[in-house]
Parts: sequence; structure tokens; C-alpha cells
Amino acid sequence: MTPSTPATIDLLRLPTADPGDLTPARALAAAGRTLDDVLAVVGKTEGNGCVNDFSRTLAATRWESLVPDETVTVFSGGTEGVLSPHVNLLVADPGPHPGHDRGLVAAAGRTRDLQPAEVGRGSQLSAVRETVDALVKQLGLTPDEVDMVLVKCPLLTSDRIAACRATGVEPVTEDTYESMARSRAAAALGIALALGECTEDAAFEALEAKGAAGVWSSRASASAGAELTDCHILVLGTSGAASSPLRALHGVMRDAIDLESLQQLFAQVAAEGGTVVQVFAKAEADPSGTVRGERHTMLTDSDLNSTRHARAAVGGLLSALAGTTAVYVSGGAEHQGPPGGGSVTVVYRMPVA
Amino acid sequence: MTPSTPATIDLLRLPTADPGDLTPARALAAAGRTLDDVLAVVGKTEGNGCVNDFSRTLAATRWESLVPDETVTVFSGGTEGVLSPHVNLLVADPGPHPGHDRGLVAAAGRTRDLQPAEVGRGSQLSAVRETVDALVKQLGLTPDEVDMVLVKCPLLTSDRIAACRATGVEPVTEDTYESMARSRAAAALGIALALGECTEDAAFEALEAKGAAGVWSSRASASAGAELTDCHILVLGTSGAASSPLRALHGVMRDAIDLESLQQLFAQVAAEGGTVVQVFAKAEADPSGTVRGERHTMLTDSDLNSTRHARAAVGGLLSALAGTTAVYVSGGAEHQGPPGGGSVTVVYRMPVA
Amino acid sequence: MTPSTPATIDLLRLPTADPGDLTPARALAAAGRTLDDVLAVVGKTEGNGCVNDFSRTLAATRWESLVPDETVTVFSGGTEGVLSPHVNLLVADPGPHPGHDRGLVAAAGRTRDLQPAEVGRGSQLSAVRETVDALVKQLGLTPDEVDMVLVKCPLLTSDRIAACRATGVEPVTEDTYESMARSRAAAALGIALALGECTEDAAFEALEAKGAAGVWSSRASASAGAELTDCHILVLGTSGAASSPLRALHGVMRDAIDLESLQQLFAQVAAEGGTVVQVFAKAEADPSGTVRGERHTMLTDSDLNSTRHARAAVGGLLSALAGTTAVYVSGGAEHQGPPGGGSVTVVYRMPVA
Amino acid sequence: MTPSTPATIDLLRLPTADPGDLTPARALAAAGRTLDDVLAVVGKTEGNGCVNDFSRTLAATRWESLVPDETVTVFSGGTEGVLSPHVNLLVADPGPHPGHDRGLVAAAGRTRDLQPAEVGRGSQLSAVRETVDALVKQLGLTPDEVDMVLVKCPLLTSDRIAACRATGVEPVTEDTYESMARSRAAAALGIALALGECTEDAAFEALEAKGAAGVWSSRASASAGAELTDCHILVLGTSGAASSPLRALHGVMRDAIDLESLQQLFAQVAAEGGTVVQVFAKAEADPSGTVRGERHTMLTDSDLNSTRHARAAVGGLLSALAGTTAVYVSGGAEHQGPPGGGSVTVVYRMPVA
Repeated sequence: MTPSTPATIDLLRLPTADPGDLTPARALAAAGRTLDDVLAVVGKTEGNGCVNDFSRTLAATRWESLVPDETVTVFSGGTEGVLSPHVNLLVADPGPHPGHDRGLVAAAGRTRDLQPAEVGRGSQLSAVRETVDALVKQLGLTPDEVDMVLVKCPLLTSDRIAACRATGVEPVTEDTYESMARSRAAAALGIALALGECTEDAAFEALEAKGAAGVWSSRASASAGAELTDCHILVLGTSGAASSPLRALHGVMRDAIDLESLQQLFAQVAAEGGTVVQVFAKAEADPSGTVRGERHTMLTDSDLNSTRHARAAVGGLLSALAGTTAVYVSGGAEHQGPPGGGSVTVVYRMPVA
Repeated sequence: MTPSTPATIDLLRLPTADPGDLTPARALAAAGRTLDDVLAVVGKTEGNGCVNDFSRTLAATRWESLVPDETVTVFSGGTEGVLSPHVNLLVADPGPHPGHDRGLVAAAGRTRDLQPAEVGRGSQLSAVRETVDALVKQLGLTPDEVDMVLVKCPLLTSDRIAACRATGVEPVTEDTYESMARSRAAAALGIALALGECTEDAAFEALEAKGAAGVWSSRASASAGAELTDCHILVLGTSGAASSPLRALHGVMRDAIDLESLQQLFAQVAAEGGTVVQVFAKAEADPSGTVRGERHTMLTDSDLNSTRHARAAVGGLLSALAGTTAVYVSGGAEHQGPPGGGSVTVVYRMPVA
Repeated sequence: MTPSTPATIDLLRLPTADPGDLTPARALAAAGRTLDDVLAVVGKTEGNGCVNDFSRTLAATRWESLVPDETVTVFSGGTEGVLSPHVNLLVADPGPHPGHDRGLVAAAGRTRDLQPAEVGRGSQLSAVRETVDALVKQLGLTPDEVDMVLVKCPLLTSDRIAACRATGVEPVTEDTYESMARSRAAAALGIALALGECTEDAAFEALEAKGAAGVWSSRASASAGAELTDCHILVLGTSGAASSPLRALHGVMRDAIDLESLQQLFAQVAAEGGTVVQVFAKAEADPSGTVRGERHTMLTDSDLNSTRHARAAVGGLLSALAGTTAVYVSGGAEHQGPPGGGSVTVVYRMPVA
Repeated sequence: MTPSTPATIDLLRLPTADPGDLTPARALAAAGRTLDDVLAVVGKTEGNGCVNDFSRTLAATRWESLVPDETVTVFSGGTEGVLSPHVNLLVADPGPHPGHDRGLVAAAGRTRDLQPAEVGRGSQLSAVRETVDALVKQLGLTPDEVDMVLVKCPLLTSDRIAACRATGVEPVTEDTYESMARSRAAAALGIALALGECTEDAAFEALEAKGAAGVWSSRASASAGAELTDCHILVLGTSGAASSPLRALHGVMRDAIDLESLQQLFAQVAAEGGTVVQVFAKAEADPSGTVRGERHTMLTDSDLNSTRHARAAVGGLLSALAGTTAVYVSGGAEHQGPPGGGSVTVVYRMPVA
């Protein structure tokens, strides 16, 4: 793919009967595409979305046996509340779709494998940044034209922590659940830096400080998993060099109940005459322990991790607005939108021009 | 209280720092009331909302040591997602508030103690029905003027199951979590019957069938707990014989993402010039396993009970609409609204007349 | 395999790094065997052992892509407490091992696929019984010579419940977690019947009564999963027609802390001069709500299902006795040993004759 | 109490029907004692034993309304597996019990209130050490004669973290569950220092290093809770200046399946002709991720915190050895025994002299 041939894509959203369900692949033929056209498989699976979520591994194992090697998979665990397990197949769209002044484009890639000692640290941040840089260039987009950077990144298990220590290096954390947050943070800051949303100094300082509230990307969506050791990256943007009925918009939720921001995004789609195809949102427990001044209990619930709470709540709201529960809500929004909020990307389809 | 002196009430919604927190009682003095004016304490506490939720017991123990004997307590566990622990103090409002053509009234009572063998069975249904009947009459309301009947009802623990069997009777279920659903169902059907929403035959048949989809009350809100052995009942209505700035509206969510129905209720409040004081909603996992045709995973998640999922999702939506997370969302909506949906009651305040 | 060629087997116990880990297969070559020699793969995986345990599905998917079609897989989820994820490869042992007066033999098979309506009902019981009958005959064993019948059986998901209802039949339960207990019960009673441990009437009556305390098999070990729709069955026995260093013993725990029964089994192994290779045990929460008169909380804990509690506790005890945490403890012991207890089988190795 | 009048005590172990159950107090009269004789109430309650365990708060609230102000309460949450909720009443024993060459003595006290910023830090360590020092002196014991120091210490909630930050100080951790481990660690190191089990430098360095494997007390048992802001401390020892049938022994489990060490303690009791009255043990997930070389999954299970796993497993073993499930097993053994193991104290009764 080169800038002169925009990587126009279509998005097929398909339900799954279980994490290993490959029947969505049948929809490709109906759409006139093949498995070779699949750039990325982005799914929600029904595990706990945490360290021991083997629903993600099952999905990745099954899909990776089916799709070409260069296709990336991003499985985000956790369909709490009303959320419905599904996959989004991002497939090359050969077109032509004349008459549109722009169109949705995407590119996918991978970083190198990361050692356990690198997870959640500067070298992960840099690796993500470099890959995002390359993919954005490949698409011929300016950073401002990017609507979403989706990253699947590794975490630390007991085995990986032991392996790290065996090399004489202390891992970024010995808490396996916290390692997910650290990995997402490093990925998100790499994206923020690649998209010019912060300076290099700010990104690295925020990584150290673990929660510098002002440093974040409005387009980053990172999720961590034990099913991989590199980072899988998908860059999505709306390109003026493409012509297709699909487009995207992005925004942020300022907190977990930010109805207004969501309504503005949906209103803009409606104003353009489009219909929503999919919504990608990040969610998290507000680190302050409160939402609009009222105490929440997501950070003191030792039975249920905060990312599960956050997905359930934001998933309930977003599903109601979208009119479908097969939306993509991912938990743990470190540097992916403002604290307590999260990035949101809406993919929508315009009528035939 | 007699019909000639309508039991006009005010509703104070106050945050709690933990389930045992009694500082909300201080708000009474500021409002010119005393503990003797408290008709009911209705709270959300931060336990799991299931069988072993001792946050409810802690709250009940503490508040019952403070309020008069005749005051009822209803503590509903579970503040999943963004929901915020709080109490609603329903206090007698001496008025006068001249110039309103109606006003919010309430009455509270208790059934007799229920034996373990009665939980989830016809005798619980009948006991609830009788108490609701009496309270509605006491308020001088027609059944149609009732906006909500809130019931706190017992459940079965291992001890209570053993005690039941020791009397030679098999309990309605040996699954302690399921006993909550059975108890809520019996209470809800008692309410539906008292409010004329179904026939006596239909109510008792629905109790046997465990899920007769068409038999439900649009105003029932029942929650179960181990902290009591009788049923605590609160009847809330809007009376034309009262004059106060508070009123209520009720409706139902047809499913867990029924934005439209909620917006209609909020729109009506706005149309009357009122402001929302509190929203009471029931939520449940759709028993079909789907929401609008898309699969949900609430009923196959063995780590997290379905009532927790449902509260989190509906709580996210309702909080966003209400602009506050201190709303009352209770899980397990058997016969409390249509399957997969739930009853909703909005209490609102009109400007000074 | 025919009775005249006893199906002598060896048991290789190997650790796994995660549920999808196939590296244990490498041990076959070291032992002079191939994948074609593998009769059964019996593993403990680290999911919740309940309805949404995708660690089992991941393991089954991976191993079934490797082993011959006729090899059965039995993955039991749940390694709570100290339990260590591992697989037991049951491999044909070509011998000869002259000089032993008996030896461990095994045969494996499958029932037909079971419809959702059959799960937990008489037709599942009969299907298991028939397959066990056939396998015992195939091994030329008397029922008394059987030391363990391991069954992996199906459960009901929301999808399967809906499919059942679509055929106009109500499933045995609408509670997906309870469906596991029902399926295990039917399988266990089929085993009890096949091994002559109860009459046909007693078996079918116990299935209806859901908990007839006196009807159980001392050698049944059943676990349920969503990863299959038939039953996978492994029969293990000590045959006087075989000569090998491996043997088995069986017994029962009368309750979850029955140290004495376990010590007797271990003492007998020691008395014969053997060393323990593996222990297979079933565990459950005592349905009375007590253990030796003291209350337990496994049946009132809505955060953690009782099978997880039971595995953790019995796993702690058994690991300490065995000196290793890679023992096979499975939760949910309906009709698999006395109520609150469970069946136990010890496989041990004698010195070279 | 002064050294010249040894604080001889008796231990009454009594079952509870729920965390708020005060019926055990009735046993005092039967034993010829009153509430004024109660030095300490040490109980196991059936919550999750983690941050949001309100079963502890309920128990503390109820008992503290009953006992004298100077009585300390120590409620340890979590009765996973077979463990049975109960209380141990430590009551002054007026004697005389002539003819014993020693006897069990105890003293109880409290530190000052600790600010959120102090939790898990050196000032908590010092406060615990000072109180233990004073109590040991009060009992006239040498450090070697101390058999157990039980501490209940505070944790950090979202509110306490926010309060800490509002003073411009970052708390020791922002993870509420981890704050329990930090608080237990500081308490345990304070005990180790007071009992001469490590140097002052080693204690403070271990606190910084979070896991210095070699620095631990064989007699410390600390548990954290949100129900208090100071530390409640109970020192238990066997004094040659006392004469009573009760005595104690202490040891450590080197790992979670250390049957041998436990058997030695029980054997010694038997050798002296005593019978076990109660066992107090600490348990934890081995930080290496393995037990005797086999992988465990307690530290990668995001559904179930490792302290719950550890209590269940060790509780299963200890209950089987003790023949009762009403033993005191507490989770989280930082510096309370060797890594992966834990301290153990056995209280036993000798025949009448």
C-alpha cells in the first residue's frame, strides 16, 4: 500500500456464538471478498478482559489459523452488562465508489516482540510510536486525519515476571493486573506522541508519573492481553485522497456519563446524512474515586476489577445511543482520553453518492 | 395517617461514605425535620447485591438503631459501574405548599414474618398483596395513582434451607441466589395483583410458571436480602388530595437499552417545568439471552451474577440521562416490567407555585 | 483392543504453561511413544471451571488438532488455591513388563451427541451407561475391577437453552451453572448403574429427586463443559490379565476434610511398595451447609461458585498429602461419592518387578 | 494487669450464624465469665477478606457495642473453602489452676490512629513495634516466650487516598487491594523488630523493598481492614509465671502445602498430652508463582484475589488436620513466615493437673 493507492476499507460487524466462532468469515464471500482481503480482525470476546482471559487467546488462536500472516488481530475481552460479543472485519474495499469527497482508510502492523522488562516502559512507548508513525505515513495521512489507533499490547504473567527477574531486571510491576494498565499507558503515550498530541518529554514523564492527567490521546485505544508479546496496531483515518461511503469521526467522553459529547458525535453523523456502522470507545474508573462529585466504588471492589465495571456502565450508555449492543467498548483508558473519560471513534456510512 | 390528611412527603437524597454511614441523618435538621419524620430509608449500598451482601445488613443495623420502629428500611445492594452509594430519606412534609394541584404521598408498612417455606410461594404473594392493599387505601389512592411500590423481601440462606427441611418441607429452591429471584417474583406479583395489573389466577399461575412473560407490574420494585424475614413495603403515589411541589411519574423500560422510554419520562418532567429529584429503576438480564437480537453474556458468566451486570449497564445509561450517578437501580426485575426490561419511577420537583 | 490384548497404559503427568500449551506432547518422544499412542488427554486448566470457562475450550481445540480422532479429551477447569495446571497423557504401553500380577488398563469412547433437551435427563444417563458398559466389556474387566470412570459431559448455554425451547421442550433448568450439576448427575448415575452400584430404578429416581443422598458411585468423576455436545468417557481399571508396573486404587472422601480415608489409600500404596503417580478426586460443597457440624459458606457466596471453593479446599489437602500440586481435583460431586465428599482414585507405580 | 499478676486467659471458640451474630456472648455466662472479662474478640467473618469486606465492619460494629472500650476486636474476613465463620473470645481466667508449670497469657492494646499517609510506611511499623514492646513488657515475657502477635491494621480506600493527596502526600500505593498488603507488611515488620527477629535496619529496608525474602516473623499474624484507622494488637504467650491448662506453640509453614511442619506441631501437642483448642495460621500465594516447582495461578486470576485462593487451600489442609473447619486462617503473609508460607500458632489444653 502506498499513499497513491489509498487503503480504502470496509467494516463488517458480525456476531459470534462463542470466542472461537469463525462463522463470521462466511460473510466475506457474501460481500464479494476473501480472507486475503482482511486487514484486521477486531473483536470483543466474553472473558473477564483481565489477565486470565482465555477467550481472547481462543479467538486469536482460531482466527490466526485462518487469516493471512500479515493480518492483525485485536481481541478485547469483556462484554459486561449488555455488550454483545462480535467481530469487526476490516477488509480492503476495491471500490470504486465515485462521488465521495473522502473515505475511510486503514493500515495495520506490528512492533517487534517486547521483552517482559520492556512492558510498560519507554521502549514499548517508542516501539509503538515508530510503528504508528510508519502506518500513518503509509496511509498518506496527516496526524490530524487519523481517527483511531487501536493497539493490542502484551501484559505480564507470573511466568513472564519470573523470566524478567531471571535476567536480573525488576519488571515495571509485580501485580499482573496492574501490568495491563502499564502496558496500555505506554502504548497510548506512544500514540499520543506519534499523533503530535504531546511532546516527547511530556510522554516519557507521564509514563514515569503513571497518571499525568493532562497528557492523553483523543484517538488512542489500547488493550492488553497475554495472547501476544508484540503490539498489534491498526491505524484508521478519513482520507481526502479516498472516495468511499465510509467515514469516521472522533471525540472524547470527559467522564463515564458524558452523554453530551456522545450526542454531538451522533448528531454530526446524522447531520451529514450518515448512519452509524460501529462505535469504538474506551472506558475507565475515574481515578479520583468520584464521578461528578459522587463517589463510585469501582476502585474498592475487590470482587470485580474496575475495568469490568467501566465497560459495563459505558457499554450500557453507548448501546442505548447506538441502538445495538454490538459496540466496541474497551476498559482501561490510561492516557486515552481525559482521566475518568475515554476516546470515542464513530465509523459511519454515507448513502450512495 | 388517614386519607383526610394526605401523607405528603419530601425526598432527601444524600451520599454515604460507607454502608454504615449515618451522617445523612444530619440533613434532617437542616431541612427542619427530625428522625421521627422519617417514613422510610431507601438506600443503595455497595455490596454485591446478592446473597452474602453484608453491606445491606450493616446499613439496616445502623439505621434501625436510629429511626423509629415503624420506619421501614429498604437497602438495595449493588452499585456496579458508575452507581453511587446513597440513601433516600422519605420524610413527612408538614407543608403547607399551597397552589399545587397534587403532590407526592407515601405510606410504609410490613408484612408478618415469613417462614422459609413461604419464601417465593403463594403465601408471600398474598402477604405482600394485603399489605399493599392496606397502604394504598390508607393513602386514599386509586390503584392507578400509585407510582411505585418498593418491597424489600427475604431470601433463603443455607441455614434457612436447613431449617425449612427440618420441618419436612422442601423450600422453593435450594439455590440461595435463585431464592432471591423467587422472593422478588412473589412480591412483584402481589403488587401487580394489588394494583389491578393482573387477575388473581394470572398472578398465581405466573408464580408457578416462574416466568410468564405477560404478567407484570409497571410499578413494582422488589429487592431481596438476608437482613430481614418479613417484607418492608413502601407505597408512593401522586395524590390529587395533596398539594406539594413533589410528584412522580412511572413507566417501563422495554429492554435494558430502552432510551426512548426514558427520554419520554424525562421529557414529560421537563414539559411540566419540573426537575428530577430521583429515579428508581429495575434492571435484569433478558431471559432470552439476547437484547434486540444480539447475544448478551449475563446468564453465562459464572464469575459475575446477572443482576450485577444488569445494574451496571442500566445504571450507566440512567446516570448519563439524570446527570448524576446517585440514582436507584435495582437488579432482578421478575414481573417488574416486561422481560428484559423493568419498571421506572421518576420523582420530580415543581417550582414553587 | 479386545479383552485378549489388555489395553495396558502408562500415565505421563506434565505441566502446562497455559491452557493452549502443547509442549507436553514432546514428552511422548522421550518416552518412546507417539501421538498415535495417546488414548486420552486429561487435563486441569486454569479457568473458573464453570459455564464460561474458555480455558477448557482452548485446550480442547489445541489438543484435538494434534491427536488422533479417536483420542478423547477431558479438560476440567479450575485450579483454585495451590492446584497446578497440567495434563495427564494416557498412552498405550506396549510392554512387555513381565513379572507383575496385574496392571493398569484403560479404554476411551464417546456417546452420541446429546440434544440440549437431553442434558441432565434420563437419555443422557442411559447414553453414558451404555458407553461405560461397552468400554468395561472391551477391557475384559468385571465392574469391581474398574477404578475410575472419567466423563466429560455437556452443559447448557443461553444459546442451547433457546434452541431447546425453540423445539417446544423446556430444558432441565434455565440456570446455566446449575445445568453443569444436572449433567454431571446424569453422567454419574449412568456410571453407578453400569458398575452395578445401584439399581436402574434407584438411578432414575435419584435423577428426578436431584439429590438422593444414598445413590452414588465411588468411581465416577464427571465434569461438564461447553466445549462438547457428546460425552467423552475414559474407563480405568486394574486388570489381572495385564502385567505392568502401574496400578490404581479407589476410595471415597466422606467429607471435604476426610484425611483418614486419604491416608488409608496412601498407606496402602506404601504398603505395596508403590509410589503415587497421580490422584483423581472429586469435591463439592456439602449440601447440608455444614462440614462436621460447622457451617460453611460455599453455598451462600454469590461472588464465588461453590465448585471453586470445593476444589480449592480439597486441592490444598490433597496436594499436601501427595507432595505436589499437580493433582487432578474436579468440582461438583453429585452422585460421585457421598454428599459433601467425593470419589478418589490413586494411580501408582510399582518398582520394576 | 502487671507482670506480677500474669494475665492468664482462656479461649472460647464459638460458631456464628452470620457476621453480626452476638449469640457467642451467651457462652460467657456458662463459663462463669462476663463481658468485662473479654480481652479480645478474634473472629473469622464470611466476606471476601479484601477491601470491600463489610462483614468485618458489621461484626466490629456489633461486638464493639457490647464489649468494654478497652477490649480489642480483630475480625479477619474470608472463610473460603471449608472454613467456618466463628469467634474466639479471649477471656481473663481468674484461676486458680494449680499444678501447671506454665500457662497461656495475653494482653491487648491499640496504636494511635494512623493517617492515610502513614499506612504501609515506617511510622506504622514504628507504632506497631512500640505497642508490641509495651504489651510484651506488661506480660513480663521475654520475646522468645511470645507465641503470636495478632494485628488488625487499616487499609486505604478511594476516600482515604483522596484525603491523603489533599494533604499533598502521595499514599504508599493507589491500589486499594495492594494497600492491604502494604499495611500488613508494616505491621509484621514492626512485630519482627519488637520480637528481635530482625534488626532495625533490616526491617526498614524490607519495608522499602516490599519483599525482602529473609526478613520475617514466625509469630506475626496481621490482617487489614477498612473498619479501623488504628492498629488493634493482641500478644499471646506461654508464661512460666502462670499456671493454667492452656498453652501455645508456634512454628511456620515453609510453603502452602507444608504438611510436615504442621504435623510436627500437632505431634508435639499430642506428646505433651494436650488437645488442640485453636490454630491460627497465615497463608499467601507464593510470590514466585510456583509451589515446589509447579506453577500456581493465584497471581494471574483476575476474578479471585490471591488471598482468597490461599486461605481456601491452607484452610482445607489445616481443617483436615485439626478435624474442624472453625480454624483461623488469614490471607496475606507478607513478612509473616517465609515467602509462600506463613506463621502458625497452636493453642492447646492440657488435662487437669
